[in-house]
Amino acid sequence: MDAADIRILSVGTALPGPLLDNAALARRFGMDELWQQWIDTFIGSSTRHLAVDLESGEVVSSLVDLGTAAARRALDNAGLEPGDIDVMVLGTAMPDQLMPTSVNMIADRLGINNVPTFQLQSGCTGAVQAMDLGRQLLLNGGRHALVIGGEVCAKHYDLTLDVKKMAPDELVNLLLFGDAAGAAVLTSDDVPDTLSLRLLLNRLTGLGRPPGQSVDWFGLIDRASARQAVSEDYKAIEESVPVMSSEILDEMLADLEWSRTDVDYLLPPQLSVKMTDRIVERLNVPGAEEISCVSEISNTGNALPFFQLERLIPQMAEGDRAIGIAVESSKWIKAGFALEKV
Amino acid sequence: MDAADIRILSVGTALPGPLLDNAALARRFGMDELWQQWIDTFIGSSTRHLAVDLESGEVVSSLVDLGTAAARRALDNAGLEPGDIDVMVLGTAMPDQLMPTSVNMIADRLGINNVPTFQLQSGCTGAVQAMDLGRQLLLNGGRHALVIGGEVCAKHYDLTLDVKKMAPDELVNLLLFGDAAGAAVLTSDDVPDTLSLRLLLNRLTGLGRPPGQSVDWFGLIDRASARQAVSEDYKAIEESVPVMSSEILDEMLADLEWSRTDVDYLLPPQLSVKMTDRIVERLNVPGAEEISCVSEISNTGNALPFFQLERLIPQMAEGDRAIGIAVESSKWIKAGFALEKV
Repeated sequence: MDAADIRILSVGTALPGPLLDNAALARRFGMDELWQQWIDTFIGSSTRHLAVDLESGEVVSSLVDLGTAAARRALDNAGLEPGDIDVMVLGTAMPDQLMPTSVNMIADRLGINNVPTFQLQSGCTGAVQAMDLGRQLLLNGGRHALVIGGEVCAKHYDLTLDVKKMAPDELVNLLLFGDAAGAAVLTSDDVPDTLSLRLLLNRLTGLGRPPGQSVDWFGLIDRASARQAVSEDYKAIEESVPVMSSEILDEMLADLEWSRTDVDYLLPPQLSVKMTDRIVERLNVPGAEEISCVSEISNTGNALPFFQLERLIPQMAEGDRAIGIAVESSKWIKAGFALEKV
Repeated sequence: MDAADIRILSVGTALPGPLLDNAALARRFGMDELWQQWIDTFIGSSTRHLAVDLESGEVVSSLVDLGTAAARRALDNAGLEPGDIDVMVLGTAMPDQLMPTSVNMIADRLGINNVPTFQLQSGCTGAVQAMDLGRQLLLNGGRHALVIGGEVCAKHYDLTLDVKKMAPDELVNLLLFGDAAGAAVLTSDDVPDTLSLRLLLNRLTGLGRPPGQSVDWFGLIDRASARQAVSEDYKAIEESVPVMSSEILDEMLADLEWSRTDVDYLLPPQLSVKMTDRIVERLNVPGAEEISCVSEISNTGNALPFFQLERLIPQMAEGDRAIGIAVESSKWIKAGFALEKV
C-alpha cells in the first residue's frame, strides 16, 4: 500500500491577530526584562500569533475561522473549487465545540457538501493522522482530499493568571504555544511537479506509559471546580521526544530503503526552539536542510506540518526527498511522513 | 470499492450503573406521577443507564471504562487477543478529556499497542463513521479493525437543576439520553457465518442549514460564564430526521440495487421511542423486522448501533439482509450501513 502514489497538490495556512513578541507578552503580564531573557534561554521562541486579544481578552479567531482561511488558500493554490473535494479530514486537539464539529462548520463556510467529513481528536500528530486518512481514503476512490490541522488554545489561555507567582513549568504553557491552522489538498491524480507521499507512519506506542500531557474540558457540572485543566510532564517530554524522533526517522528510513544521505530536507517536531535544536542534533542528518518555523510562530500543534510544507514546497527540486516527524506526547504516538518531488 | 468484502466478526456492549426507570428519575427530581406520564407520552423511554450516580452525584463510569468493557467483550466474542488488532477507531461526541484521547486510554487498558488509532469527534453518526473508516482502512491492509462508539454525558448531566422550573424542551435533555458504549471487530478475512458490510453511507448534508444541536465545552477562561452548553432545535430535528432517514434508505437501496422487500431487518435511528415510531412509519418497510432498543436504554448516541447489532446478529440467517440508519442532527450528516449474512 505504501507504493500507491498520492500527492500533495497544494498547501495553505492561516494565523490570527497581530504578531506578538516576547516584549509584548512581558508588558501584558507585568514582567521584566529578566523574564524575557528566561523565555529566550529556556524556550527560544521570538514571536507567536494568538487567537485571543491580549488587551481586551476577547477571542478574535476561532478554529473554524482559521481552518476556513487556510483551507480556502489551499483550494486557491490548487486551482480547485469546493465541489472538487471528495473528502475532508480535520485533526485538532482543541475543537471550537463538541457539536457541531469544526470540520463540518468549515465545510459549510467553504461551500463543501455531500462528501464524508472526519474530525480527528488528536494531540501533535493530528495533522499527520489526517494526512494518513486522507491518503488512505483516496486509495479507495476519489480525486481530492482536503486535510486540515489547527489549534486555538483561547479557552485555556488564562490572562487573569498572576504570572509572577507561576512556577516555570506552568509558565511554559503560557509561552510555548501559538494559534494557527493549516491545510493541504491531496490528490490521487498524476499531477507533475508535486510532492508524492512515499510513506506515512502513525502508530500508538503508549502501552503502560503515563500521559506526558493532559488537556481536559469542563462541562455544566464541574465547571465551578478548581480541577486542573492542563498539565504536562515536561521531564518525560524532554526525555522521550528526542529519542522517539530518532526512532521514527530510523524506522521510516528502513521502510523506505533510504539512507540518511538521501534526505534533502528534514521537518522536525517544533515543541520549542530549544527542544527542536536538541531533536535535530540527535536526528543526525547533517546533509539535510532543516525546515523549522517554531521561532516565529511558536508551537502550533496540528497546524505546524502545513507551515513546514509551505516553506518546503518552493525549495524542492525533482528527485528531492524530505522527511517530517511528529510526536504526540499525551499518549506517545509516533508519526511521520516521507515526500519526494516527482 | 463497495464490492470489497469486509465482515463484522463480533460485537460487544457495556452499560454503566443500575437500570433507572422513570419512577426513579421522578423521585430523584422531586416530580410527581403526572411528570412520569409526560415522559411516557412525549419520549416513551422506560429505562436507561447513567454514568452518574443519582444519589451521590458521583461519576461512576467514564467513556474509557465503558469503551474498554465493550471492546473486551467484542474481542472475547471474536476469540481474539489484543495483539490481533491492526487498527482502532473510536467515535464519540463526549470524550473523557481532550488529551490524552479516550481511544488511546482504551488501547492502554486493553493492552493494544503499535497500531494506528483514530478518535472521531462526531454526533450520532460517529459509530457509522468509525465503521466506515475501519472498513476502508482494512481494504488497504490488515486483518482486524476494532471499532468503538460511546457516550458518557455526565459532565453535562446537571443534577442540581430545578426540574420543576424547566421548559419541556430543556427537560428533554435530562430524559432522552442514556450512557453506554459498544464495539465491533471488523475483519478482512473470509470468515463464514458473519455479516458482510455491503455498503456504508456517510455524507455531510448541512450546507447552509443551522445546527439542530449544539454541545459546547468550557475551558479555564469561560467556565465561570453562564454561557449555555447544550441546546437543541427539537422542531428542526423532528421535522428533518424522519425525512432524512427515508432519503438515506432510498439512496442505499438504489446503490445496493435492493428493493424494500429485500430488507429483512431495519435498524432505525433511536432518538426517542416516539420519534423512532414516526421514523419507522415513514420508512415504510412493512416486511422488515424493526430492531430497536431505545425503550430500554434510551438514546445512547454513538453506542447505539452496536446494541442494535447485538440483537440483530443471532437472528440473521444466511442470505438475510439488514439496513441500519443514523442521522447526525448537529450539522445534518446522513449515514447508514447495509449488512448481509454470508
